[in-house]
Amino acid sequence: MALFSSLTPVFLAVLCGVVVVFFIRSFQKKDRKSNAVVSKSTAKSRPWVDEDLQDTELNSRDEEEESEWAAGEEDVPHVPYAPARYAGDVMLNRAREFYALMNGRRSVRFISPEPVPREVIDYVIRTAGTSPSGAHTEPWTFVVVGDAEVKHKIREIVEEEEEINYRQRMGDKWVSDLRRMRTTWVKEYLDVAPYLILVFKQTHGIRSDGRKKTHYYSEISVSVACGILLAALNNVGLVTVTSTPLNCGPHLRLLLRRPANEKLLMLLPVGFPARDATVPDLTRKSLDDIMVYL
Amino acid sequence: MALFSSLTPVFLAVLCGVVVVFFIRSFQKKDRKSNAVVSKSTAKSRPWVDEDLQDTELNSRDEEEESEWAAGEEDVPHVPYAPARYAGDVMLNRAREFYALMNGRRSVRFISPEPVPREVIDYVIRTAGTSPSGAHTEPWTFVVVGDAEVKHKIREIVEEEEEINYRQRMGDKWVSDLRRMRTTWVKEYLDVAPYLILVFKQTHGIRSDGRKKTHYYSEISVSVACGILLAALNNVGLVTVTSTPLNCGPHLRLLLRRPANEKLLMLLPVGFPARDATVPDLTRKSLDDIMVYL
Repeated sequence: MALFSSLTPVFLAVLCGVVVVFFIRSFQKKDRKSNAVVSKSTAKSRPWVDEDLQDTELNSRDEEEESEWAAGEEDVPHVPYAPARYAGDVMLNRAREFYALMNGRRSVRFISPEPVPREVIDYVIRTAGTSPSGAHTEPWTFVVVGDAEVKHKIREIVEEEEEINYRQRMGDKWVSDLRRMRTTWVKEYLDVAPYLILVFKQTHGIRSDGRKKTHYYSEISVSVACGILLAALNNVGLVTVTSTPLNCGPHLRLLLRRPANEKLLMLLPVGFPARDATVPDLTRKSLDDIMVYL
Repeated sequence: MALFSSLTPVFLAVLCGVVVVFFIRSFQKKDRKSNAVVSKSTAKSRPWVDEDLQDTELNSRDEEEESEWAAGEEDVPHVPYAPARYAGDVMLNRAREFYALMNGRRSVRFISPEPVPREVIDYVIRTAGTSPSGAHTEPWTFVVVGDAEVKHKIREIVEEEEEINYRQRMGDKWVSDLRRMRTTWVKEYLDVAPYLILVFKQTHGIRSDGRKKTHYYSEISVSVACGILLAALNNVGLVTVTSTPLNCGPHLRLLLRRPANEKLLMLLPVGFPARDATVPDLTRKSLDDIMVYL
C-alpha cells in the first residue's frame, strides 16, 4: 500500500495523459467531420464526396494574398496598350445597345433539340477564356458535352440528387403535387439541349517543381468567366439556365474524368429556345435599387 | 495515509476531469481563432473585421439548396419568350466579333483622369444588373464613387492593407526594391480614375416577416454580374483592373455606410486608358487548353 501510495503521482500523471490524448483525438475527429460537408441524405456510399468537398475555397484562402489580380506580373515586360476609343455619343449608343441586348437575356428551361453549329460554341468558350483571373492563372475547364449518352448519364446524376433534395425539404405533404415536383427535379433539358457546358474551377495548379500551387480566387475568377460566357451565348441568340449542382459535382467530375483539383461550378444546358418557350413573368430591380452614387 | 489512499480514486477522477475540461476549453478557443480569419498583422484595433469575416458563404451553405437558379419560381405565371434568332452565318459572325471585342480586353493599371460620361456608367451598371442570380435575389449593390475625397480615403485604406501584406510577405530583403514596392502596394489609380466601382454582395435579405433570408449563391451570382460588368465596360472602350481587396472589405463597407449584410467582393477603378498605358506581355491559353469536347 505504501508502495502504491508513493507511486500515486506517477500513476495519476499517466492516466491523465491517456485521458487527455483520448479527448484530443475525438475532438480532432469531430472537427474533420464538420469540415467535410457530407450529404447525409443518401444511403449509398459516395466516397468522392469527402475528397471533393474538403478542399473548399475559404478554408485555404490566405490572408496575405494579393488583392490586385494583375499583381505578381511585375517581372513580365510591358507593351503599349491602346484599345478602340469612341466619341461620347458613339460610346453612349454602344452602352445602350449592349444593355438592350443583355436585358433581353432570360434563363430558359425550354430548349430546342435543333443542332447548334459547333464552331459557334468554340467561339463562345474562347470568349469566356478572355476573362481576367487571379494572377492570370486562367483556372477554368469548360467541358462541352454533345454526346447523347453522356448527357443522359449527367441527367440521371443531377435528377437523383435533386429528388433527394426535394423529398427532404418538402416532406410527404407535397409528394402529390406532381406539377411542382416535375419542375423541381425533372430536368428534361439535360437530354434535349444539343450541348451541356460543365464549367470546372481548378482549385490549384502544379508548380514547375511539382508542388501544389493554390489558386486563391478561383471561384470568383471562374464565376466572372461564366458571366462573360452567358453574355457570349446571349449575343448569338442561344439560351441556357444557370445551375450550380455542387452536390453532384464530385460524381459528375468522375463521370467526365476530370482530375481531383477540378470542382464543378456550373452546369449550363445550351441551345436555341424551344418555339413555345416561356419564362416566369419576373422584373428586374431598377437602377436606383442596385446603384449608389457617391 | 490510509485515508488519503482510500480517497485516491476520487481525487484521481476529479483531477482528470479538471484536466480534460481545461484541454477542451483550450481546443475550442484555438478552433474559434482559426475560423475567424483575423489578420494578426495590424496593431490597431479593427472591430469590424470579426463581424464581417465570420459570416462566410461556405459556412452557411446549405446542402439542401436548390441547384437550379430559376427554381422557386414555379408559382410565378409564365409568359412566351422569343428572343432574336440569327441565321447560321450571322450567328457565327456575331460569335467571332464578340470574341474579338472581348479578346481585346486587358487589365489596365494606367488610367486616364479624363472624365467619363456618367450616363455611360449608369448603362454599364444597368447591364450588370441583367445578370442571373440564385432564386432571382439580385444580391448586388454597385457603389460608384466619383467624389475625390472618398476616392482618396479608399486609396488610404487599400494601400495600408497592401503595405502590411507586402511587408509580411517580402520581409526586409525587398524593402530597398522601390520599383517593385510601388507596383505592389501603391495604387495611384484609386485617386486618378474618374470612377471607382465597389461591388458588394448581399449575404442575406430580409423576409416579409422580418427574418433573415440567406442568399445561398450570392458570391457566385455577384461574380457572374461582375463578368457582365467587365464585358459592358470593355464594349464602350473603358478599362479597369480587377481587384478583390477582401481584407479591407469591412473597413470600406463602413466608410461607404453599407449595411452589415453587404460584403465587398470587387473594387474596380474605371476610366479611359492613359495615353501611355502599358500592359504585361501575357498570352492566353488556347482553346484546346481550356475546352474538353465529349
